[in-house]
Amino acid sequence: MEKIACGNVTSPVGFMAAATACGLKESGALDLAVLFSDRDCTAAGVFTRNRVAAAPVILDRETLAANPGGIRGVVANAGVANACTGPVGMEAARVTQRMAAGAFGCEPNQVLVLSTGVIGVQLDLSKMEAGLRRAAPELTHDGGPAAAQAIMTTDTRPKQIGTRVSLPGGDVTIAGMAKGSGMIHPDMATMLSVLTTDAAISPVMLDELLRGAVERSFNRISVDGDTSTNDTVLLLANGASGVTVEDNASLTAFREGLNRVCLALAQAIVHDGEGATRFITLQVAGAREEVEALRVARAIATSPLVKTAFAGCDPNWGRILAAAGRAGVDLNPDRLSLWIGEGERADLQLVRDGTPIACDESHAAQVFATPEFTVCLDLGMGEETVTIWTCDLTHEYININSEYRT
Amino acid sequence: MEKIACGNVTSPVGFMAAATACGLKESGALDLAVLFSDRDCTAAGVFTRNRVAAAPVILDRETLAANPGGIRGVVANAGVANACTGPVGMEAARVTQRMAAGAFGCEPNQVLVLSTGVIGVQLDLSKMEAGLRRAAPELTHDGGPAAAQAIMTTDTRPKQIGTRVSLPGGDVTIAGMAKGSGMIHPDMATMLSVLTTDAAISPVMLDELLRGAVERSFNRISVDGDTSTNDTVLLLANGASGVTVEDNASLTAFREGLNRVCLALAQAIVHDGEGATRFITLQVAGAREEVEALRVARAIATSPLVKTAFAGCDPNWGRILAAAGRAGVDLNPDRLSLWIGEGERADLQLVRDGTPIACDESHAAQVFATPEFTVCLDLGMGEETVTIWTCDLTHEYININSEYRT
Repeated sequence: MEKIACGNVTSPVGFMAAATACGLKESGALDLAVLFSDRDCTAAGVFTRNRVAAAPVILDRETLAANPGGIRGVVANAGVANACTGPVGMEAARVTQRMAAGAFGCEPNQVLVLSTGVIGVQLDLSKMEAGLRRAAPELTHDGGPAAAQAIMTTDTRPKQIGTRVSLPGGDVTIAGMAKGSGMIHPDMATMLSVLTTDAAISPVMLDELLRGAVERSFNRISVDGDTSTNDTVLLLANGASGVTVEDNASLTAFREGLNRVCLALAQAIVHDGEGATRFITLQVAGAREEVEALRVARAIATSPLVKTAFAGCDPNWGRILAAAGRAGVDLNPDRLSLWIGEGERADLQLVRDGTPIACDESHAAQVFATPEFTVCLDLGMGEETVTIWTCDLTHEYININSEYRT
Repeated sequence: MEKIACGNVTSPVGFMAAATACGLKESGALDLAVLFSDRDCTAAGVFTRNRVAAAPVILDRETLAANPGGIRGVVANAGVANACTGPVGMEAARVTQRMAAGAFGCEPNQVLVLSTGVIGVQLDLSKMEAGLRRAAPELTHDGGPAAAQAIMTTDTRPKQIGTRVSLPGGDVTIAGMAKGSGMIHPDMATMLSVLTTDAAISPVMLDELLRGAVERSFNRISVDGDTSTNDTVLLLANGASGVTVEDNASLTAFREGLNRVCLALAQAIVHDGEGATRFITLQVAGAREEVEALRVARAIATSPLVKTAFAGCDPNWGRILAAAGRAGVDLNPDRLSLWIGEGERADLQLVRDGTPIACDESHAAQVFATPEFTVCLDLGMGEETVTIWTCDLTHEYININSEYRT
């Protein structure tokens, strides 16, 4: 697999994008993105499990169920999430879909809609209409980076990647963009992300591939434990490469490429976590079942005490064990072992079988002071391991979120 | 029920306490408390559900199971939690129990042990021994306030209360002290709290009364979502008032008094939550089952986004609905209604049946700027309501917890 430098959603053949500022962000920054394929795409989506789902989530579920083989475009706005907006918000999502279809020159059920931003505020449709009218004629094969910029909210940088995968029938490109920085604790879903490929894949296969990739990437990250109302990952496959993914060899190679694209975007979200200064790879090993390991990992990754210790470079590892202990898993404290280490190697053992190991604490503090480190907790009960990625909890997170709207 | 001004654990007849600084807190502040009854007590305890339970929690469970009718004293230290300390820590708890029994002049199985402080550090038994030798001779009927002081860690003030209850057979006193400020998310348990009464009550009845009181007080608060390894509430009844609680009328009156003592201490913990500047009463109404309402309430109370909005006086109510939506409850977004208000009255409606109500946002911001306010979310599905208490998430929380040990 070869990385495409500066790959983005318009790297695959046949995809075009554009972005404009339609006034939804008070800053005047880009806030409306459009993505369009020159031919019909098969498409799959994975959406938030939050029961308070945003209007565009509800609409996209409908659209994908009705027309999974004939998607042409995506319209995404930032600034307003169109969540908790009742019937008025639902109608606004439908009007957006119709206006975008008009601008693209396709049918409404060929357009998917994404929104991100403040919850509980109605979408200004006149701004959306003016924006769509400006953006659609500007669709270009170089438009990917601008689109990735336009979907940002508290993100400090755009997140995009592309990769080229060699299949038995030829080369295809898989690419994607994502936004997300806070309200990040995807559960069976993720933040906004749009993935594109010029491979030809059936809707059923696409759906299965996407679910598998999301489960081990976007669903394995946490910034603050809050699951968004708008989490969505879309994958559009337009077949423009002329290469079809059907046989096992193609499927395996494509799946590997898709997984890497999703993982890179998911990790980019954690790196850009609101206020984050540390990127932590958290491994929970020795579990009897994967779901058990995941539950422990999530309890640690969402613990304010663990996350503030990370922020303070304080190797206060007792908080990690305490968080594990409240995860709702029947673990045995006397079997717990803990390692930490710089980068991706956890080579400094702090706890063996529930008992602290006398070690040079300054060495542990040094590890916690590096921008990227690994924490590995072994439950000592079985063979299952999971890895998730998280960040620290800093003053800047509080600055951002106590002043988000004001 | 009449409140005793400055009531504390030595307000009930026959209880004595003392405190000393034995050097476990680097600051040199009081860090060792002893409580002793001049006659045998029946006793009950409720402990953390954290699987990584501290050594004193394990020891107290054993002691109470073996000798629930013959407890004489409690020894509590702050500075070191004696959690995640393996067999060495377990032995340290047993040695502490024996040393305290020696100092009190009673049997080891008549002594309960409490620890709070840093996790993963071994207890210094020579300091404990010297401290116990100093404190035991100083036991006095006025020692309650010093004991409440000695069990503090990041607490900014001691938490204690006493109340006098009139029963058919005469008056009894119920009193208690508690510590807790961070790592507060009790689940079937609570932070350290010791309750005393001079009523005579059987161990079985005492246990039932304590569990009922804890469920609606300590188990209904959250500061940061982290459940401690050391959470313990003890209730000692020495019968020194000569009044026995047995008949229904006495039980009812005693239960009411005990519930009020527990609720006052639990709310005092939230008021003194690490870095807290807001005290929020959170009601979730209209649930089909109480457990459902509680799950939604806890999701809201532990959401970093909700808590930072509270800190910033930002009436960003969409985050409250978003947190409810990820609580794992099958709720209907179109039935949600939300009210807020100053003090204990939520009289300003922001959402009706899932749709925002046009209201003067400055009024909402005003409510969020008051130090104590109420948030009421109606799920619109049933008749069950729960109330819990929580606080905001501020810069000071991060200061305290990124620098706790250093």
